[in-house]
Amino acid sequence: MVEKKSEKLKSIDELYTFCKKKGFVFKSSELYNGLAGFYDYGFLGVELKNNILKNWWNDFVRLRKDIIGLDGSIISKKKVWDASGHTKNFNDPLVQDLKTKKYYRADHLIEEQLKISVDGKTIEELQRIIEENNLLSPEGNPISKIKVFNLMFPVNIGAEGTVIAFLRGETAQSIFINFKNIIDTGRVKLPFGIAQVGKAFRNEISPREFLFRQREFLQMEIEYFYNPEYESVEYELEKDENFLEFEFYFLSSEEQILKEKNERKIKKIRMKELLEQKKIKKIHAYWLYKSLKWYYKFLKEENLRVREHLKEELSHYSSATFDIEYNFPFGFKEIFGIADRGNYDLSQHQKYSGKSLEFFDEKTGKKIVPNVIEPSFGFDRFFMALIIDSYFYEEERGNVVLKLHENISPYKIAVLPLVSNKKELLDKSFEVYYYLLKNSEFNIFFDKSGSIGRRYARQDEIGTPYCITIDFDTLNDDSVTVRFRDSKKQKRIKIQSILNEIKKL
Amino acid sequence: MVEKKSEKLKSIDELYTFCKKKGFVFKSSELYNGLAGFYDYGFLGVELKNNILKNWWNDFVRLRKDIIGLDGSIISKKKVWDASGHTKNFNDPLVQDLKTKKYYRADHLIEEQLKISVDGKTIEELQRIIEENNLLSPEGNPISKIKVFNLMFPVNIGAEGTVIAFLRGETAQSIFINFKNIIDTGRVKLPFGIAQVGKAFRNEISPREFLFRQREFLQMEIEYFYNPEYESVEYELEKDENFLEFEFYFLSSEEQILKEKNERKIKKIRMKELLEQKKIKKIHAYWLYKSLKWYYKFLKEENLRVREHLKEELSHYSSATFDIEYNFPFGFKEIFGIADRGNYDLSQHQKYSGKSLEFFDEKTGKKIVPNVIEPSFGFDRFFMALIIDSYFYEEERGNVVLKLHENISPYKIAVLPLVSNKKELLDKSFEVYYYLLKNSEFNIFFDKSGSIGRRYARQDEIGTPYCITIDFDTLNDDSVTVRFRDSKKQKRIKIQSILNEIKKL
Repeated sequence: MVEKKSEKLKSIDELYTFCKKKGFVFKSSELYNGLAGFYDYGFLGVELKNNILKNWWNDFVRLRKDIIGLDGSIISKKKVWDASGHTKNFNDPLVQDLKTKKYYRADHLIEEQLKISVDGKTIEELQRIIEENNLLSPEGNPISKIKVFNLMFPVNIGAEGTVIAFLRGETAQSIFINFKNIIDTGRVKLPFGIAQVGKAFRNEISPREFLFRQREFLQMEIEYFYNPEYESVEYELEKDENFLEFEFYFLSSEEQILKEKNERKIKKIRMKELLEQKKIKKIHAYWLYKSLKWYYKFLKEENLRVREHLKEELSHYSSATFDIEYNFPFGFKEIFGIADRGNYDLSQHQKYSGKSLEFFDEKTGKKIVPNVIEPSFGFDRFFMALIIDSYFYEEERGNVVLKLHENISPYKIAVLPLVSNKKELLDKSFEVYYYLLKNSEFNIFFDKSGSIGRRYARQDEIGTPYCITIDFDTLNDDSVTVRFRDSKKQKRIKIQSILNEIKKL
Repeated sequence: MVEKKSEKLKSIDELYTFCKKKGFVFKSSELYNGLAGFYDYGFLGVELKNNILKNWWNDFVRLRKDIIGLDGSIISKKKVWDASGHTKNFNDPLVQDLKTKKYYRADHLIEEQLKISVDGKTIEELQRIIEENNLLSPEGNPISKIKVFNLMFPVNIGAEGTVIAFLRGETAQSIFINFKNIIDTGRVKLPFGIAQVGKAFRNEISPREFLFRQREFLQMEIEYFYNPEYESVEYELEKDENFLEFEFYFLSSEEQILKEKNERKIKKIRMKELLEQKKIKKIHAYWLYKSLKWYYKFLKEENLRVREHLKEELSHYSSATFDIEYNFPFGFKEIFGIADRGNYDLSQHQKYSGKSLEFFDEKTGKKIVPNVIEPSFGFDRFFMALIIDSYFYEEERGNVVLKLHENISPYKIAVLPLVSNKKELLDKSFEVYYYLLKNSEFNIFFDKSGSIGRRYARQDEIGTPYCITIDFDTLNDDSVTVRFRDSKKQKRIKIQSILNEIKKL
C-alpha cells in the first residue's frame, strides 16, 4: 500500500489514466487507436472547461470596461498568414531517421541527448551541434540534415481546389484582421483590449506529454492595444493595489544561458525590479501581474515561475516575452506567454491589405498604429496543470481528493440520499436536488447507488466541494448534512439555507 | 421617411449591414476582401453567443439528470468518416459552367430556374430534369453533366503527409466514437443523452445567405440513446406537462410533393396526431417537443414550422427526420433537424473498429446496441433568425429596437450618468456600475457620451432591456431611474433594489 499520507501524481501516464477513468479527457479517435496530438474532453472535462472559460471571461472581459470580446473563424485566408509571417516563419527544425524515415524535432533531439537547452538557437547552430556530437536518431540510426517544416495546416476551399486557406496557427490574427472593423464600430479608446477564446492548430511533428503539445488546442488570448508615447503613466490601472510590489518566482535570461534546464537558479523578485532593470515596460508588467494573479487563484504559487525569453528565442514579431511556467512532472514548462508585439502585426496587415489601420488617439490628438501586449493563456496546458496541482491521494481516506477551486469544480454540490431503497427518502432527495438546481446556477450531481462512504469518495475524486446527505431526520426537520470535501467536516443545516451558506463560503 | 409604425428587416443585406454596424458579425478575413462562407462574431455577437450557449446547456444538460456533456476534437481520423459513411455519401451534386468553369449546385440551379422543389431527388432524376428543360448556368452558358463533390475537408497530419484526417463534417461522430469510453466510465443507464457544442465544417460549393450556409459553423447537438423495446412507455418524462397535446405548425410530406416551396399549406397539429398517423415514435416526438419549446422562448411561434422529411430526402443514416424551419426573408428554411438514426452509427463503428459497442440494459437484462434520436440545433442559423425576429424599426423612436429575450441580450443593464461633465455624477455612476457587476453575473454596459436620448437609442439597438440613469437626485437619495426597453416606461428605484427588481421581472 501507499506509505505517505498524501501523494501527488508522479507521471503523465498516471495523469492520463486518472483523466480517462473519471471522464475528464479521452484520446480522440481512440476507438480507432487514437490520432496523436488530439484529445476529447469528457463529461467531467467539459464541465470543468466551461467553468474555467467562464471564470477567465468574467475576470478579463465582463469585469473590465476596457476589454471587449471577439470570436473569429478557424479557417482564414492565406494572405492573413502571409502578412503575419506564419507561412514563412512558423517552422520547426526536423531531422529524418535515414533508415526508418521517421521525423524528429532537431531541438528536442539535442536537448534529450545532450541535456542542454538550445532555446533560440538558429538552424545553423543546431546543425553544428548535431554534427559536432555525431548525434543519431533515438533508434540509433544516422539522420538527415535539418529541414524546416511549416506548422500551418492548409485547407482547400471550393470545388476548383484553388483557394488555399489555413487553419489558424494562433487565435491572435483573428483579432488583428478585425482591428479595423472594431475601431470603426466599437467606440473604443486607447488603451483597450480585445479578448478571444478559440481553437488553433499546429502540425506538430511529435505531439507529446498528453495535453501539453497537441495539434489542436484552445487559446484564451488578449491583444491589449496602447500608445507607447504614454503607456507608462496614463492608462487606467486598478487603484487598490500596487502591482509594482508584487512578488513572484523569476528566472532571468542571464541565468539560463548555458545552464542545464530545470536546475537553474530561481528566486523571488518584485515587479519593480524588472522595471528598474529595464527588462519590461510598465504596461507589459501590469499584464504579467494580472495574468499571474489569475493563475494564483487556481495553482500553487510555488509551482509557478516566470521565465524571461532569451533574445535569440524571441518570435519574429516580439521585442520581449515572458512565459509563466508550471512545475510539471516533466519539468517547468510554459503554460502562458506574454509578448510585446509592438505594432508588427498591424503594420504588416496594413502593408499586405493596403488599408490604413491607423487609429486616432484622443489623448495625443494624433493618428497612430498602436502597439500591443499579448497575454496568451494556453487552455489545455492549464487544464493539465490544474489536475496535477489539485490531485492528492490520501491514504487515510483511501481515495484521491481533487482539491479544485470550488468556483470551477465540475459539480458544486452532490445530493445523496442516505439509502436508495426508501421511496420517501428518494422523493425528498429529488425534491432537494431540483430545488437547488432551480435556485442556483450550480452544477449539481445526484447519486443514489453505493454506500454513503463510497459516494463521498466518488465526489472527492471529481472535486465536488459539498456533499449533501438526505436522511430520515430530513423528512421531519427539513435539515440535511453538508459534508466538506477538504476537511471532511460535517454540518447540519436547513435546506433553505444551503445555497446561502455555500455562497458565503 | 419610414411610413409604418414598426418595421422589420426586409433582406439579408440589410441584416448584414445591421450586424456589422453594431458589432454582432463581421465577414471573416474581410481586410483581405473576405473568404466566402466564413464569418466572425464581433464584440456584441460573442456576448449574445455565449448567452445562447449557456441557456441551451442549462436547459439540456445542467437541468437534466439523463444528459451529460462532451467536447470532442475537430480533427478526427479518416476511419471515423469511412465508418459513418461521410467519405462516400456526404456529397453535393455539382454542374460546371463550361465557359466560365464555375461550379453550381445542380439542385439549387433547378429550384431557382424552374421554381420547383427537388428535395430528395436522385442524381439521375436531377440530370433528367436539367436535360428535359435545357437548363443553362446562371450566366447563360452550357453546363457539364452532374458530378458528385465530397463536402469533407481533408487535412494532412505529420511531416510525411500520409495520415489523412478530416475536419469533422458533423459533431455527432465525436459522440458516437466516444460511446464506449462513456459507457465504460460514465455510470449511465438507458435512456441517456450526450450533448455537445462544437464546430463542424463543410466545403459548400456556394455558401450563401450570410450565416445560413457557411463552410464553418457551430452545432448544438444531443444524441439520445434508448432501447427501442420500451421507448414508447417507460422513459422518464417531465411529469407536469402532457406533450402529446402540444400544438405547432406542421407541413407534412404529403403536402410537399410537387407543390411549390413556401406556398404549401401549413396548419396547426397536435403532437398526438403525428403519433396516431405513425409518422413519429413517442421518444422522437418528445424530443421534437422539447426542442420546439426551447425555440419558442426566443422566436415567435408563427415564424416557426415543423417540416416532415420526404422519404427520398432522408440521410443515409435516418429512418425519419423532422426539421424546424424559420420564416427567413428568403422563405421558410431549416434551423434544426431531429433524426431517428436507429443504431446505424454505432453499428457501423462496431463493424469498422472491431470493438463491441453493446451496452447492458438493466431494465431488460439484455445487451443491445442502442438506438438514438438526434436533436441537432444549428447555432448560426438560430443567431440569424434571432436578430430577424427581434428587430423592429420604430418610427416613433426613430431607431431600431432589438427585442431580444432579456436572458440572452448581450448586455442586461446599461448604466448612464445623466451628464458626463460632473465629476460627482461620474463617480457615483462608476460606483453603481461596479456594484452591479460585482453583485450579479450580468453583462453591464457603461456609457457616458452623448445625450441621454441618444444613449437610450443605442441600447435599444443592441437589445439592452434595462437602462439605469444616475442623476443629481441619486446623489441625495440613492435612487435611480430604470427605463424599460420595450415599453419605454420609467421607474424610480433604490440602487440596492435594482438587482432584485430585475430578477423578479
